[in-house]
Formats: sequence, C-alpha cells, structure tokens
Amino acid sequence: MVSSNHENAAGSLAFPKRLWGKIVGFALRLKNLGKDDPRRMIHCFKVGLALTFVSLFYYFKPLYDGFGLDTMWSILTVVVVFEFSVGATLGKGLNRMLATLTAGALGIGAHRLATLSGETGEPILIALFVFIIAGIVTFLRFIPQIKARYDYGMMVFILTFCLILVSGDRDEEVVRMGFERLSTIVIGSCAAVFVCTFICPVWIGVDLHNHIATNIEKLGNFLEGFEDGYFKISEDGQPINKSSSLQGYKSVLTSSSKEEIMANLAKWEPCHGKFRFRHPWNEYLKVGSVTRQCAFKIESLNHYLTSEIQSPPEVRSIIQGECTVISSECGKALKELASEVRKMTKSSAAEPHITNSKAAAENLKAVIRSSLSKHCNYLEIMQAGAVASLLFEVVKCTEEIAGAAHKLASLAHFKNAKPRVTPETQELPSQGAVNPVSGIDGAHHVITIDPSQSLRGSENSSPPVLAPRMEVQTLEMSSF
Amino acid sequence: MVSSNHENAAGSLAFPKRLWGKIVGFALRLKNLGKDDPRRMIHCFKVGLALTFVSLFYYFKPLYDGFGLDTMWSILTVVVVFEFSVGATLGKGLNRMLATLTAGALGIGAHRLATLSGETGEPILIALFVFIIAGIVTFLRFIPQIKARYDYGMMVFILTFCLILVSGDRDEEVVRMGFERLSTIVIGSCAAVFVCTFICPVWIGVDLHNHIATNIEKLGNFLEGFEDGYFKISEDGQPINKSSSLQGYKSVLTSSSKEEIMANLAKWEPCHGKFRFRHPWNEYLKVGSVTRQCAFKIESLNHYLTSEIQSPPEVRSIIQGECTVISSECGKALKELASEVRKMTKSSAAEPHITNSKAAAENLKAVIRSSLSKHCNYLEIMQAGAVASLLFEVVKCTEEIAGAAHKLASLAHFKNAKPRVTPETQELPSQGAVNPVSGIDGAHHVITIDPSQSLRGSENSSPPVLAPRMEVQTLEMSSF
Repeated sequence: MVSSNHENAAGSLAFPKRLWGKIVGFALRLKNLGKDDPRRMIHCFKVGLALTFVSLFYYFKPLYDGFGLDTMWSILTVVVVFEFSVGATLGKGLNRMLATLTAGALGIGAHRLATLSGETGEPILIALFVFIIAGIVTFLRFIPQIKARYDYGMMVFILTFCLILVSGDRDEEVVRMGFERLSTIVIGSCAAVFVCTFICPVWIGVDLHNHIATNIEKLGNFLEGFEDGYFKISEDGQPINKSSSLQGYKSVLTSSSKEEIMANLAKWEPCHGKFRFRHPWNEYLKVGSVTRQCAFKIESLNHYLTSEIQSPPEVRSIIQGECTVISSECGKALKELASEVRKMTKSSAAEPHITNSKAAAENLKAVIRSSLSKHCNYLEIMQAGAVASLLFEVVKCTEEIAGAAHKLASLAHFKNAKPRVTPETQELPSQGAVNPVSGIDGAHHVITIDPSQSLRGSENSSPPVLAPRMEVQTLEMSSF
Repeated sequence: MVSSNHENAAGSLAFPKRLWGKIVGFALRLKNLGKDDPRRMIHCFKVGLALTFVSLFYYFKPLYDGFGLDTMWSILTVVVVFEFSVGATLGKGLNRMLATLTAGALGIGAHRLATLSGETGEPILIALFVFIIAGIVTFLRFIPQIKARYDYGMMVFILTFCLILVSGDRDEEVVRMGFERLSTIVIGSCAAVFVCTFICPVWIGVDLHNHIATNIEKLGNFLEGFEDGYFKISEDGQPINKSSSLQGYKSVLTSSSKEEIMANLAKWEPCHGKFRFRHPWNEYLKVGSVTRQCAFKIESLNHYLTSEIQSPPEVRSIIQGECTVISSECGKALKELASEVRKMTKSSAAEPHITNSKAAAENLKAVIRSSLSKHCNYLEIMQAGAVASLLFEVVKCTEEIAGAAHKLASLAHFKNAKPRVTPETQELPSQGAVNPVSGIDGAHHVITIDPSQSLRGSENSSPPVLAPRMEVQTLEMSSF
C-alpha cells in the first residue's frame, strides 16, 4: 500500500516534471535560435516597431479622418511586406505598390466599361472580366522569370483588380477607393522599407557574398584536413580521423536553390557598402556552381575516408607525400580565394598554391608510374589510384573556381590587394614570380594580374570588410 | 537617294518585325508552358472560377447586407489561399482560418483590457500589445518546424491581432467585426479548397511519389546507357556517345529542397486514391536521400564519359564484360524499384538484378586481380580502376535504395504484386529462387518477401496507376 501510494505520488509528479522539462527544452531552443543569429532578435524588434508605428495612425485624427477604414491596408501591408532582409522587403514593397497602381487603373477602366452596359449587363461583364484577368495573370505566374521576381506583384494585381471592380456602385466612389487603397499601401510599404533599411539592415547580398566565400572555405578545410583523415593510420590499418570536423562541405552539395533565391532577392537591393546597385549577382551563382562541382568530387574523396575497404598502409605511404601536397596546396588555394572574395580584393595569392598543386600532380603521376606499378595486387592499389585520380580532378576544379572567382572580381570591380612581402613568400623561392595559370583544358579564363601584386601575404592583411557570419536562415519571399 | 530611301524603309520595317518576332517568341513560350503540364491551364481556369464565384457574392443582396464591406475578405482569401496543389491550398486555408480564430479571440481580450485602462492608457496599452505580440510571433516564425508548416498562419495571426485591436471603438463593435472577418475568411477558404479539391485536383503527394520514382528511374537510365557511353569507342579512342541523353540524372543532385517542400505540403492532404491521410511522407524523403547519394557516385562516373584522359581501349576491353553486367543489372534493378514505387506494389523483381550485379562485382574483382594487374603502366589502367571502384559503390547504393524503397512499401502498406512468370525469368535458371538481399554493411533493412512473388515480370504488368508526368513546376507556399 505504501509502495503503491509512493508510485502514485511519483506518477503524479512525473507529468509536471516532463512538462517542465519540455518547457525548458523549448526555451533553450529559442535561446539558441537567437544566439545563432542575433539579427533575428533585432528583426523581431523592428517588426514590432513598424507595426506599432502604423497602428498608431488610427489615433491621429487627421490621418484617420482622411483615410478612414482604409488605414487597415497600411497595417496589412506592413505585416506582409516586412521581411528579414532589405532585398526581400524592398522587392515585395515595390511589387505591391506597382501592382496596386496598374491593377487599380485597369480595374477603374473595366468598371467604367461594365457600368456602361446597363444594369443587366454589369454583373455579367464584371464576372467575365474577373474570370479572364484572373486566369491570364495566374498563367503568367508560371513563367519562371516572372515567378522568381514578380510573383507577389502578380498576386496583388489579381487581388486589387477584383476588389476595385467588384466593390463600389459609382465610378467616382471606385476612383476614390482606388486612390485611398494606393496611398495607404504606399504608406505601409514605405514604413516597412524605411524601418527595414535604416535600423540595423540585413543585406541579403552581403549574406550571399559571405555564403559563397564560406562554401569555398569549407572545401579548403576539407582538403587541408584530408591528409590526417586518409594517411594517419591507426594500428588496425584504418584511418584514425573519421573526421566529423571535415564534413562541413556537405552543405555545399545541396545549396543551389538557396543561392538562387538569395541572388534574386539581392537584385532588389540598392547600393550599400562596397556593393553597387547592379552588382554582378549572377556571377556569384557561377562561382557557386563550380564550387558545387568541386564538392561533388570531394564527396567521392570523402568516401575513401570512411570506406571499409582500404589500400594497405604500405601502398598509401607511396603516394602520401604528393597527395598531401596536392590536397594541402589546393586547400590553401581555396582558402586564399575565399578570403579574396570575402575581402573583395583582386589578388593572385592563390596562384602559387595552384602551381604547386599542379606540379605535385605531375610528380604523383611519376610516382604512380614508377613505384605503384610495381605492386602486383591491383585490387590493393586500386583505392589509392582512385584517390589520386580524384585529387587530379580537384586540382582542375580548384583552377575553375579560381577562374570564376577572378571573373567575379573583375566584373564586380574588386580593388587590388596591397602588395606585401611576407616570410612565407621567401620560403618558396623556386616558384619565382607568379604567372597567371592557364587551365588544363585550355585558357578559357584570362586572368589579368598586376605584376606588382603577384606577391601574397597573410599577415597585415586588411581587416575583413564583412562579418564572417554566413548562414541566412530565412529565405524570404516564402511568406507573402 | 533611292538607296537611302530604301534603307530608311528597311529600317522602319525592322522594328515592327523585331517586335513581332518577340511577341511570337513569347506566345510560343507560353504555349510550351501549357503543353509541358496541361494542369496549369486547368489551374488558371479554376482560379478564375473561384474568384468569379466569390465576387458575385456582392451581387446577392442578402449576403452583402449581412457582411457589407467585409465580403472583400472572401475575395482576398481566395486570391492568397488558392494554390496549384490541394496540399498547399488546404494548408494555407487551415492556417488562415485557425490563425484568424485564435488571433481574433486574443485581440478581443486585449482590446477589452485596453479599454478598461481609460482614455490615456488605451493607446499606450494597445501599442504595447501590438509591439509584444508582433515581436514574439515573428520570432516563433524562425523555428524551422513552424516555418515549414505554419509560417503563413503566424503571419495571419499578427495581422488579425493588430487589425482587431486597433480598429473599433467599442467592444461590441470589435466582436462583431471579428466575427464577420472570420466568417468571410471561412467562406473564402472553403470556396478555394472546394474548387481546388473537386475540380481536377492536383495532389502534391502524387507528384512527390512520382518524382521519387522518376529520380530512381533516371539513375537507372544512366546506368543502362553507361556501357554505350564508356565502352563503345570511336576511331580516335574516345567514347562515341558523349550522351546528352544520359544527363537526366543531373536534376537528382539538387532536388533535396524541392522534395522537402513537397513532403511538407503533402502532409496537409486528406486521403486520396491509394494514399491514406497519414501516408509516410517522410519515408519518401529517405528514399530521395539515398537516391541522391547514388546520384553523387554517378556524377563521378559520368566524369569518365567526358574525360579527356582515358584508359586505352585494350585496357577498357578487359573490364568491359563485367562492368557492363554491373551497370546494366544495377540499372534494371533501379528501374524495377522505380516501377514498384510508382505502381505502389511490393515486389522482389529487383532482387535478382541486385544479386547478379553483386556476382558480377566479384567477377570483376577477379578479372582485375588476374588480367588488369599484368599491365605495367599503372597510369593507363588507373582510370579503368576508378570506374570499376565507382561501380562497386553503385552496387552498394542500389542495395540501399532497395532497402529504403522496401521500407517505404511496408510502411505505406503497398499491395503485393501479382506473381507472374515471364520468358525472362526462364532465361536465368542459374539464380534459382530469389533470396532477400542483405546489405554489405550488415542487414540493416529486413525485407519481407512473399516467396510466391519472387518471380519478376515485365510483360502483362498491371497498368501504371499514376501518370508518368512528374515535374512540379510550382512549389507553392512561396506565394502567400
């Protein structure tokens, strides 16, 4: 009996305890959400501010008397237009204002036409107009280019057209209504855009810029860590480092749609910081695309870190030296490129690394030809061969990324990096002056390099222009 | 003079001609857009119909007198809620109705509280409520799970709360307004959902189902065509078929976000056809994920089709036989799996192919050990070795896809396929009865196979249940 009571008491305590645990867990998640990206907290503050601002319009008698119930449209506009980034907010605001203007004008014209046709004809004509315009504009929304940038405008167009056409008996009333709707929407959009742009703005263009740089960097991290992952071998013949720390590149594999959305939103943004109004956002997509190609190779390479079937250590040790040089030099080159993109400088700091990696690739071929071929068990050396073959691909990809990054640098008018001499440069006297690298597949990208800048430096580098935070958690335009 | 006149005339003709060309081009693009997916045309018709239907509400005096200007909310609701697929429309409709209900109730309560505080306190309290609720709900929208399914509802919640709180002087008026808003929104949502569901519905669940099946099929197509692409060699030693026809798999590489959006929308759909209400949509994501893993291997494999450095034909011919068997058997297995998923049947038709491919992989290892090792130039045989190594991976991936597909089949209660004997089965007497395949990495998926169904058939197969059309061009929830 005592025990049963005890159990009951424990049972009745268990529920509040579980509930409390859940509440604490939820609160912790919220805290982490805010910690991951503090801009989110600021965004919430900004939304509250903008809404409070337009809500108080109701309390200013002169304004309320002027617009009456239509003031509601300002609130509605702020709620639906206010997004996390300036690009998304501006895009939606412009879409909304332009669509309201054109649809309002068309609606007033159509209404006039309908009233001319007498009392019986009016509802029929109005129904017909609504049906036709709604159908046509809905179809236009399927066009990919329109869907990417003007989808919201198209929706507002249908909405405004229907509302103007349907509500209101007399022409003058319709015109007055259209004007009031337009002005309150303009007020709401401007309030949203103003608060979003002038209070701690979140530029999605900057985020895309950093995102691309970080992606290149992630590949660089993998390649720099590849040696430890593949060649440092434990007693049972398996690689020691199964390396969750190297798995950062995985996010690069599937980031294409995210990049496209970001580029589309960035196109709405005005000039800010070092970004001009017509910054070549599409070039970022190209850099992103070649980076992803390289990530696919790295995904294959990563497989050999975790594969159960491995070439024996003595085989791996034959190719270790050159493979290490290739991967670490490619890694360094990618990190230099990432840093160039991030700092928005033109520099040739990556070139010596690419040259080194290409030289190492040639050496590796020689090693394979001479030493590896002596091993009779082809199955044993096959894995090592596949790793080598993938590293050759990575060298090629690194060159392509360098080409795309240099093209971006020239189109976006990145500034030349200041020439600097560092001890590192002196460690590599054999390379002499750095030459522009021509691709294995012919020089399809011409790199214009100022000879005075062909020295690289990692010390005294100018401070990073952009914060290293990268992940844009909310891809707007998803919540209209 | 004559010639100059002639030029002028030509010049003045050039502009209308160019314009005409552009118009024709645009019209052709629209035509293709409709042709690619005829459901789009029907969708436009449906939107027009639903809007005309609610617009005519204004003309029914009893309804208009009851709701007055609030009828506008029905039109607004139809425009923003009506989406291409049933799942998206239903999700938005439910989000909108539920959010309006809860925010309305909360708004009325907050309004009562504010009025109690006297004339000076009222605007201050209202501003405070708007600020706090808008801030909190905006923050909740950042939680990924909420963002995926309830983002729209959260937005409507803020909107309704602000509108209710701000507009209306007396409590009764506020209650009346809230009620009217709710009822017109329910009418609008129901109209949209009704038209979307009962007139040629587009089920996003069916689209996801077909999308997953098609993705598996695309990999199968590549593997079946791989032999021609890699081993059929032209006189200059290069593969003949550089095979744009094999590039279908590329879309699989980047389809993860699309699949996630589709699965989230599909969860809103009621039971339809063979799909129950709680159909295991998340399993589709798992099948999609292992399919993508396989696609990454195929991306590497594809590289060797187009690579400039190739193993010489005599080397390739050594491994040709077994490689062909592996790739074609894996291809067949994947196509069988795709067909099983598409037809929603449990079947073991893919198992013999997997068994064959595994046997061929063992044979290939033997060939490599015996014949390929005799070649002294390791660099020459390295490419061939890498291809072989990738094919081993593909065999493993195919097994994983089979495991994931079988798990889906069992969780989604797919029906057993009818046992059939075809000439093909008799061609492979050596395999005997088909056994469940256990993974190389241990049997982590248990496949329950009815022995009576262990024969495969391609003739007399039951007609495909689902249309083979696949691409969902519009991923809704993107235009609220």
